[in-house]
Amino acid sequence: MNYQRFFEEAIDQLHAERRYRIFADLERIVGEFPKAIWRSGPDAREITVWCSNDYLGMGQHPDVIAASQNAAGKMGSGAGGTRNISGTNHPLVELELELADLHGKEAALVFTSGFVSNEAAISTIGRLLPNCLILSDELNHASMIEGVRRSGAEKKIFRHNDLAHLETLLQQAGRERAKLIVFESVYSMDGDIAPIAAIADLADKYNAMTYIDEVHAVGMYGARGGGITEREGLAHRIDVIEGTLAKAFGTLGGYISGTRSLIDAVRSYAPGFIFTTALPPSIAAAATASIRHLKQSQVERDAQQRQAQRAKDVLSAAALPVMNSETHIVPVLVGEPELCKMASDRLLGKHGIYIQPINYPTVPRGTERLRITPTPFHDDGLIDRLRDALVETWTALGIPFRDETKPSEPVRSDRVVPLVVAKSGG
Amino acid sequence: MNYQRFFEEAIDQLHAERRYRIFADLERIVGEFPKAIWRSGPDAREITVWCSNDYLGMGQHPDVIAASQNAAGKMGSGAGGTRNISGTNHPLVELELELADLHGKEAALVFTSGFVSNEAAISTIGRLLPNCLILSDELNHASMIEGVRRSGAEKKIFRHNDLAHLETLLQQAGRERAKLIVFESVYSMDGDIAPIAAIADLADKYNAMTYIDEVHAVGMYGARGGGITEREGLAHRIDVIEGTLAKAFGTLGGYISGTRSLIDAVRSYAPGFIFTTALPPSIAAAATASIRHLKQSQVERDAQQRQAQRAKDVLSAAALPVMNSETHIVPVLVGEPELCKMASDRLLGKHGIYIQPINYPTVPRGTERLRITPTPFHDDGLIDRLRDALVETWTALGIPFRDETKPSEPVRSDRVVPLVVAKSGG
Repeated sequence: MNYQRFFEEAIDQLHAERRYRIFADLERIVGEFPKAIWRSGPDAREITVWCSNDYLGMGQHPDVIAASQNAAGKMGSGAGGTRNISGTNHPLVELELELADLHGKEAALVFTSGFVSNEAAISTIGRLLPNCLILSDELNHASMIEGVRRSGAEKKIFRHNDLAHLETLLQQAGRERAKLIVFESVYSMDGDIAPIAAIADLADKYNAMTYIDEVHAVGMYGARGGGITEREGLAHRIDVIEGTLAKAFGTLGGYISGTRSLIDAVRSYAPGFIFTTALPPSIAAAATASIRHLKQSQVERDAQQRQAQRAKDVLSAAALPVMNSETHIVPVLVGEPELCKMASDRLLGKHGIYIQPINYPTVPRGTERLRITPTPFHDDGLIDRLRDALVETWTALGIPFRDETKPSEPVRSDRVVPLVVAKSGG
Repeated sequence: MNYQRFFEEAIDQLHAERRYRIFADLERIVGEFPKAIWRSGPDAREITVWCSNDYLGMGQHPDVIAASQNAAGKMGSGAGGTRNISGTNHPLVELELELADLHGKEAALVFTSGFVSNEAAISTIGRLLPNCLILSDELNHASMIEGVRRSGAEKKIFRHNDLAHLETLLQQAGRERAKLIVFESVYSMDGDIAPIAAIADLADKYNAMTYIDEVHAVGMYGARGGGITEREGLAHRIDVIEGTLAKAFGTLGGYISGTRSLIDAVRSYAPGFIFTTALPPSIAAAATASIRHLKQSQVERDAQQRQAQRAKDVLSAAALPVMNSETHIVPVLVGEPELCKMASDRLLGKHGIYIQPINYPTVPRGTERLRITPTPFHDDGLIDRLRDALVETWTALGIPFRDETKPSEPVRSDRVVPLVVAKSGG
């Protein structure tokens, strides 16, 4: 075994399959969101970021930055230990109270990332409950899939948002068996929304627990930013609401919220929670400032929805193949991985517009796309420049525009090719 | 199935086994390390922290705090995306260069925690290498155990630091089979050190890869803080050096360093790396400042060693059962979980000294202990007060002092009870 050679070949294979990823080296500029400096070799130039998950620009909000700086100045840059061994800092305790309040739950628990929160919580719940059956939406995020796998529990995958299929599986398991339904509110690559009320009805009918991932919704939906469950008045009907601090709240970390005993059980039994250093005070304080701001301010949510709708309208009017989306996410279909990469490179190199290509395995083959995330700070002028750049790129590379001979309804990814297991978000 | 009832019972069981953990709510005070404010119910009082993993107090270093604050002020509080989708910020790129240089490796890769770095790197390497056999020290940290499990590879556990046992296992596997030896340099609960050179010799002899966890050593050992591998001139003989930014460097996150192709393979294939938000610029910049400082300053390392030795001497002179340790970690044996918890509670309540009890499963039953971590800021006066408080507590609770009839050599945990799989650090 030649180890060095082996790893070189593993990388060569990615190049051969055109799946090798190059990370764009970015320096965001506070006060000029969504601008950033992009470094490539010796060059550094200003570009516009159109694919950030800092969905509301809260990472640059003065209150959030001030909270981060103040906490670092008062309490230092790190937590200094695991939660159990000297790492539970006061801002983190306050953050968990804030999150429990946000979702109307008894308690919340913060993890170092959304990935870890899903992996640790789902695997721990699934492992603790005797003979648990996990019912998982086929488009769930990689972190949820890992959580399901690591639980060791039996799993059944239900077709995306398919209530009839879910009910069949619940029925087969029977009322007595422990069952956990795991799904997302907003699916981030297509921007569609789960039928939460109907899933909660099924859970009641068959006595199943429910676990919802709201990472692409918290801060952005609901009167206080509690997500789709808040907007639809359903938070009390879902057992575990999982969310992130790293997208609309603009910081780092993930969390779950639920009853005190459930949170306490995950806190006590999850290795991925127990054996890791706590989030620093600066991150916790910044997250709390962001959540508090979005609990009482509707301005950012309204502006995001307005600009997302405008982007959809403007791009659609230019016959660009905007895919169907019920949310702030604006996917534009390319349908071929090489072209998708070329489009992204051309947008960045020629137009100073940064949109990462989304290829398989993040989305199914044949649905490769540019995933655009307009924020309150992408103003009308920026949207117009985006349209012009996309039209130029589509024309130059020969990417199909929307087929005008077909009905004008936007493209849906699930009408393009059969879905395979997707791993969104990377 | 009554879910709520089930989780309540899971918690009741922990209470019954005396394994229920209560997190101390702390607010550290910059400029007064190791002091902190401890909140318990309505009370808030100043205490001295004696169990922090901010081993050198770098989390409060002015350069580190300034770097964090400046980066937050210039670039915002979050990264805004995964590494691949707009989250690779320039301070993170600089941090990875700094870490590769620290260990004399071609490349480095940063994760959101040390736990994730071990889990993601070990599982990915073990999964990629065909028919890989993982040889794992029995006292490896929970994060390494998770990585081994998730690799799906065959594993064999060798007795702690036992070269003969390791060689037997290597021999059985033969030269041709892919083999990965995973171990730590400093084992954090006992403070002992692995025979790194001899393990590297065995790896050469049987053509195995080597993976070392240096989380309790980086920053603190070696002329530039490169860990035990640097101190012993062995960094070039180890394939992967893993470390943390959350202990001696005083911030958050973990990393691996190695050849460019190995790092690139983990970067490209590890879900726990790909599908998670990148560390914020403020954390990356703070970590870089800390590493740079410790590369050229020996003051902190010298002071830490001096104060750790003084603590061992002073406590031993008072006949307290200080366990054998070759490093900065000072474990004091209690040997019974209930007493260990009571000792910790008394130290905090009566003496204002915070040392978290370390019980099973973090350490083997019968070796329950207080794990003390003197830093450069624990001065001689604080050490004397610690001794007085421990003596008072040992006397009041009837905990055995060192048996003066036996040889004066300090206690070793592996002479107390047979070791079971330990999960250190939580």
